Parts: sequence; structure tokens; C-alpha cells
Amino acid sequence: MEQIKLFCPATIANLSCGFDVLGLCLDTIGDEMIVSKTANKGIRITKITGADLPLETINNVAGVAAMAMLDEIQPDFGIEIDIHKKIKAGSGIGSSAASAAGAVFGINELMGKPFSRKELVRFAMKGEALASGSEHADNVAPALVGGFTLVRGYDPLDIIKIDSPSELFATVIHPQIELKTSEMRAVLEPLVSLKSAIKQWGNLGGLIAGLYTSDYDLIHRSLHDEIVEPLRGKFIPKFELIKGIALKSGALGAGISGSGPSIYALSKGLETAEKVAFEINKAYLDTGIPFEIHVSKINSEGIKIIN
Amino acid sequence: MEQIKLFCPATIANLSCGFDVLGLCLDTIGDEMIVSKTANKGIRITKITGADLPLETINNVAGVAAMAMLDEIQPDFGIEIDIHKKIKAGSGIGSSAASAAGAVFGINELMGKPFSRKELVRFAMKGEALASGSEHADNVAPALVGGFTLVRGYDPLDIIKIDSPSELFATVIHPQIELKTSEMRAVLEPLVSLKSAIKQWGNLGGLIAGLYTSDYDLIHRSLHDEIVEPLRGKFIPKFELIKGIALKSGALGAGISGSGPSIYALSKGLETAEKVAFEINKAYLDTGIPFEIHVSKINSEGIKIIN
Repeated sequence: MEQIKLFCPATIANLSCGFDVLGLCLDTIGDEMIVSKTANKGIRITKITGADLPLETINNVAGVAAMAMLDEIQPDFGIEIDIHKKIKAGSGIGSSAASAAGAVFGINELMGKPFSRKELVRFAMKGEALASGSEHADNVAPALVGGFTLVRGYDPLDIIKIDSPSELFATVIHPQIELKTSEMRAVLEPLVSLKSAIKQWGNLGGLIAGLYTSDYDLIHRSLHDEIVEPLRGKFIPKFELIKGIALKSGALGAGISGSGPSIYALSKGLETAEKVAFEINKAYLDTGIPFEIHVSKINSEGIKIIN
Repeated sequence: MEQIKLFCPATIANLSCGFDVLGLCLDTIGDEMIVSKTANKGIRITKITGADLPLETINNVAGVAAMAMLDEIQPDFGIEIDIHKKIKAGSGIGSSAASAAGAVFGINELMGKPFSRKELVRFAMKGEALASGSEHADNVAPALVGGFTLVRGYDPLDIIKIDSPSELFATVIHPQIELKTSEMRAVLEPLVSLKSAIKQWGNLGGLIAGLYTSDYDLIHRSLHDEIVEPLRGKFIPKFELIKGIALKSGALGAGISGSGPSIYALSKGLETAEKVAFEINKAYLDTGIPFEIHVSKINSEGIKIIN
């Protein structure tokens, strides 16, 4: 294989009680990437459409992730990458992760799959470090592995794919305002009350159990964030209103996607997810803030090869 | 039915990363209780063997739990309870919970089961409040429901039974020293670092996933307590030594049972659980502290009716 074309999906990280550990992979929104072998060694980002991003390999998340991988495997060929961005930068649905994950997935395919999808996560994390300053797997893990993905820990990196019911759909609204990940990190309190932390891990336990047993009501009861949402929600215009509308429209739960500004809702069934989208859309028009809404089933596979 | 004889099992609460939310039910150690209908209304504790506990209903955890239940259902008969304690008070394996759970389970059976096992938890919690000053479900939930039991939250009370693999066995050592639950609570810090809390809920997510998928290695990787064990472990003589021996002997994980002084280990297979018991026994003899060791499969059923 000399060239491969990929669908690199958007992802939702920080799923309420699963802050910093639980994410999921979307299916209807994602970038396209073409990864090609070249005779000349090294990595070149040859084309970027849809976003104003640096072409220099060392300043591009896809380039940096690819470099980390090639540095380890030292192939006797080079790589060219075309990136067609559809996920907006700064949206909170894993734009940089899609690029980083796509690059390493593509190279792995061109090399005959020396690594599993899980094993690719550590390379993709190098791209995330360029984008956000920290090597986190919150988005690259679901992008690569698909479905719901738990990052149990980093020492060593431990990625667990969580079985989930097929009837879960996500609704995502992206209010197009700028929220810096670094600023959203700064609003976090370094200390939390033990009482809140216990509630949080009780809910995470419930959420994981609900996913394994397709217990939608348990998923609903568990989708709360005691700790981070109260601090970050206020930076997202109309967050509480939108969350309330999502729940009133039948969503199982709603919260901040990643570090925002996107807001996600999870619903049982496409019809409910679309109703949530419809009602949110109606309410958000009043704000005057430009926004996009996506409805998607959970992408259980992760990155896909397309023709 | 006029009389029922019960096996009321010991339980392990605060399972490492599942502090305050996750417990399990044991099978080889438990009290026996006989609960009988009487023509005279009211509740009488008629006999207690094996422990020096108050016979007065309002001062006895079984009595108080039974009162909470009868107060709600107002039956036209009374109840007599005989308690044969085998679980030592203050052991950290749910001695008071066994009595509270047994009383309400027995009454429920004599009444034709108006309540499910889960619904009985809230009555049994009233007994726990007498014993420890707080209405917690950590031990009464696994005693009543069996298996691994998650207390997702208290508002409203939400008990979830977690599927678990059949090959899990517990080893418990009870060093016979006195540790007051109230004192062990006082050593907890009201604030914890967000970083530790995230590690804890990552591990709890991993543990729940490991239980559902019978992934013993994941259970092993997840059985850590970042928050409470470092504070409480030092009050239990040779805690670190015993934990180390358990892990070296092949246990998947080990930690404090309840608020101590008992130490639990979980192993795959009876043979390993017995090896853990053997090695711990050998090491603990040197301390001069009296102790008991139990090996048990997980009791997936909870309280049992016996003849």
C-alpha cells in the first residue's frame, strides 16, 4: 500500500463524571486525511484545507505525532500528509486529536500494522502535547480505539475500551466562541472536597456499569459532574439553559465536551438525539452567537479507511 | 412461615479505589440469626451468643433496623430475634451490618417478601446509624444484595449489583486490635488533590470494567487507593508488610477492609487465595498480635436462608 485515505473522527472527552478519564468517539463529524509513502525520508505536510494551520512538520500536531512514531520505527521511506480539516480548532471535540491520531494510524497501515490501535495512542499523544502543552490521551484514545474509552492511568498508559449499548446517540452544539484550553485549565481548583470526589467516583462507577449493562436509566442517573462543570460551565454562554433543554427534551445527560465550548448530550435513540438538537438549535438562535450542531451515533470503530 | 433461620454474611467495604462506594459479600464467615413471628406486637431481641451486645431493642442494631421497617409496615404481629454472632465487633468486615441486614431480611421473608433485597437496604442503614453514627450502605448493601455492590449515591439511594467473575476469592486477616471507626474517620482529610481524585476514579472505572469483563489483569492494575489507604494504613500493624506479602503471593490486590483493622486481598482462584492466607499467617505470627484469617469465595447471593 502506497497511500491511504482516512476518516478521522471528532471525539468527546471529559464525559461529566469521567473528567480526564472517559471519552467517546463520534461518527458523523471528522477530518479527512491522505497519508502517502514517499521515496524521500522524513515527513512533509503537503496540504491543509479547511483551517489555517502550520505546514511545518514540527509545528503541526499530525507532523509531531508522525515524527514520534517514525523516530521509533525508522522506516526506509518518507511520509506525506494531506489534511482536510472539518473539525474546527478550539471546538472542544478533539480537532488536534483527529489530526494526531490520523497521522499515526495512516503510517501504521502503510507499514503493515506493526502496532495495535491502542499502541498508537502514545505516539498520537505527542501531537496533543504540541497542541495543549500536555500529553493527554482523552481524545486520541477514543479517536483511535473507538466507542467509549477509559484512560485508567498514564503510568503506564492504560486504555480500556468500554462496551456500550448500540442505541446511544450524541448531540453536540459548538458555540463558536474562543475558550483557551490553558485558561479553562487554570479555573480548576487543585484541591477538591473528599465528599464531592466520592460522589464523582460513585457516578463514574454507575456510568461504567450502565454502559456494560445497557441500563439507560443508570446512565442517566450517573451522568453528573460534581467537580469541574460547576467551575467551567459559567464560561460557556447559556450552558445551564442548554443543558436544561437537553434534559427536558429527553437526553440521558449533558455536559461540557472536553474543556468546552462545545456542549454534549447523550440520548437513547436517534429520534431523541435529533429532538435535543432541534430544541437546542431553537434556543441558541436567540443568543446571536454563531454555532453548529451535530448529531451522531457512537462510532464503535474509531478512525476508518475510506476510498 | 412463622420462623426463619439465616446466614448473615460478613462483607468488605471500601474496596481500595471504591472507597465509600464499593463493597463485596463474603461466603464463609457470617452470623446466624433466627427471626420469629410472635402474637405480641413489638420487637424483642431474645438471645445473643458470641458477643456481649445489648438486648434492648433500641440499643441493638438488629433491633433498630427492625423497628425502622415495622414502623413503616405496621404488621399485626411482633418479632423475636436470636442472634448468634460469629463476626467480631470492630473487625472491619461488617459485623453490625450483618445483624441489621439479617433482621430486616428475616422480617421481609416472614411477611411474604413485600420488599426486594435492594429495598431493604434503607431499613438496614438505620441499624448502621446506631453502630457508627452515620446511615451508610457500604456493608448492608453487599450483605443484602450479594456479590460486588456499588452505592452510586444516597440522594436517592442507588444500589447497583456489579457482575463479577466466578473465580474471585477473598482472603481476610483480622488483627485483633481495636480501631474506632470514628477515629479512623477523623484521620481522613476533608480536601484531596484533584490529581489523586482523578487517579482514583480512573482506577474505579477500570475495576468496574475488569469485573464485568472478567479481566483479572485489569482488576489487578485497578485495585489501588490513592487517597484513604495512605492515611489509614499506618494505624494497622504491619499493613504494608501484609499487603506486600499478599501481592507477592499472587493476589490481584490488597487493601484495608472497611475502616480496618482487617486487611483484605483478592485473588484469582481458591489456590492462590489460600496461598495468600498461608503466607500472611506465617508473617503475622511474628507480631504477637492475635489474629484470624478467612478465605472465601464471593457470595453472589447475599444473606441466605438455612435450616
